[in-house]
Amino acid sequence: MNYRIDNLQYCKWSRKIFEINREAGLDAVHVTIVYHEDFDELLLEIKKWDKLFKENSDLIFLGGNHEDIEKAQLEKKTAIFFGFQNCSPIEDDINLVEKVHELGCRFMQLTYNNQSLLATGCYEKVDSGVTNFGRETIKEMNKVGIVVDMSHSAEKSTFDAIEISEKPIAITHANPAFWHPAKRNKSNDLLKTLGDSGGMLGLSLYPHHLKNNTNCDLDSFCEMIARTAEIMNLKNIGIGSDLCIEQPDSVVEWMRNGTWSKSKNYGEGSKNRPGFPKQPDWFKDARGFQNLENGLKKIGFSEDETNGILGNNWFNFYKNI
Amino acid sequence: MNYRIDNLQYCKWSRKIFEINREAGLDAVHVTIVYHEDFDELLLEIKKWDKLFKENSDLIFLGGNHEDIEKAQLEKKTAIFFGFQNCSPIEDDINLVEKVHELGCRFMQLTYNNQSLLATGCYEKVDSGVTNFGRETIKEMNKVGIVVDMSHSAEKSTFDAIEISEKPIAITHANPAFWHPAKRNKSNDLLKTLGDSGGMLGLSLYPHHLKNNTNCDLDSFCEMIARTAEIMNLKNIGIGSDLCIEQPDSVVEWMRNGTWSKSKNYGEGSKNRPGFPKQPDWFKDARGFQNLENGLKKIGFSEDETNGILGNNWFNFYKNI
Repeated sequence: MNYRIDNLQYCKWSRKIFEINREAGLDAVHVTIVYHEDFDELLLEIKKWDKLFKENSDLIFLGGNHEDIEKAQLEKKTAIFFGFQNCSPIEDDINLVEKVHELGCRFMQLTYNNQSLLATGCYEKVDSGVTNFGRETIKEMNKVGIVVDMSHSAEKSTFDAIEISEKPIAITHANPAFWHPAKRNKSNDLLKTLGDSGGMLGLSLYPHHLKNNTNCDLDSFCEMIARTAEIMNLKNIGIGSDLCIEQPDSVVEWMRNGTWSKSKNYGEGSKNRPGFPKQPDWFKDARGFQNLENGLKKIGFSEDETNGILGNNWFNFYKNI
Repeated sequence: MNYRIDNLQYCKWSRKIFEINREAGLDAVHVTIVYHEDFDELLLEIKKWDKLFKENSDLIFLGGNHEDIEKAQLEKKTAIFFGFQNCSPIEDDINLVEKVHELGCRFMQLTYNNQSLLATGCYEKVDSGVTNFGRETIKEMNKVGIVVDMSHSAEKSTFDAIEISEKPIAITHANPAFWHPAKRNKSNDLLKTLGDSGGMLGLSLYPHHLKNNTNCDLDSFCEMIARTAEIMNLKNIGIGSDLCIEQPDSVVEWMRNGTWSKSKNYGEGSKNRPGFPKQPDWFKDARGFQNLENGLKKIGFSEDETNGILGNNWFNFYKNI
């Protein structure tokens, strides 16, 4: 069987978006349900998702493991896997790791741009690596079954996490820095170590991570994948589109600033372009997976390789974890 | 006027302890009201203090600035200044800095042993210094009037804090490492920089910070002060006893472990000596200030210098901040 998986979306969820994801043939989506929320605020977000699951039960359901991806394909639905982009929901309490797993969490970033209690984010000046609490938390995440996600983390912290974690980790949404040297994109050394450890890279379609931003062309993106496959095994590469469809610009401002600053931080944006950037024409939403399929085949990827990139590699990762 | 100030206590508060502090002639005490508590838990602690203030209004009242120390002396009471040993009460929200100041907070540690969102604690392997959120928070603490306390912080973080803060900072309870090389004690370089910046060192009477622990003798402690005054100006030296009178051992276990680990961390203690260490005979409680006075004079400090160390230096620090 072939699966289509987008391993990172943070859309303004609605029936319309679930329909688009189904139209795109997505069997599974890893969705970000919280950024800077604490445990109580997480519970409120989960309540909203309970309602979404109820109202759209013909399109989506909460996924817990790889069997739910198989089930989704059989039932022509999309399995939704919960993830956090920051570790704020576990607050300073190791015992909450198990709790958030019970609530459905399957991916958790140790950091979002800034320093967290667990590790350093990619926007800090100095990267001290995984902290005392971070080491304990990774052990606990391994035990209960939450994937360590280092997409927004700094480099030493990511190397540390790969070394400390007894299970492969993921960078669910980022691109290689050799192609586009953004702060959020990753070095060859890191990608090689990630791949060697069995970890996954989810390639991002978020314009700030793309060469030429919104004007990035499909061929360039697909060629980047071919070159990345020379650094890490192709089987460790998937898609994590980072689609933020229909989110207002206030959301990206909140992502970047949370409540940690009284001045305004523009993150990957700038004062003149503070909002969400426009998606490339060939990936306006998940239906762009069809363009990716065409593009990958065009530059010479086989049927199997293409299916691997577009979902089977993530499926195997879910299966092995 | 001469003032007696103990700039750090975390006792199991009761009328008995307030009486002891009065008997010791303390005009002001900086008390730790929270360690790992979040904002809501802080409010509960403040409720407990409201009750203590009501029930012991003949002995104590909440202090806000140096004038309350003068008032305390006139009224033969002890002004209580609130402080936090960790930054957890402001959670991840810069706006809570002003709120906690309104609630009475006048000192806040940026870290307690481990990495926090603001800086690195002295028990971490790597010290990345003050973080993005930390820089914003120091600015805000300067603005509203909360002293940055780096007693439990790592060295680079402390140098950073001194540099970033527009107002002098404090190390409310620690000793020089040259005398007793504990993790919590401070290097000569750091003490010199602290003093040069107008910052205060509160010398600790907590046995783990003392040469020979519980068996430390008074002469050795007083000689240490004389040697410290060769590194930093005597006017920047005071007392922060770190007295934890009548606290059960479960409290020190909680201080060290909070909720960040499933295994047990012994901090400054050890598996065989996990609890609170016994105080030296000459400083069982704040009445030991009298022994300190005798000891300081005995090794040659003048009346003025002795009064400076035992309270006037802290008073001037409060006055200038």
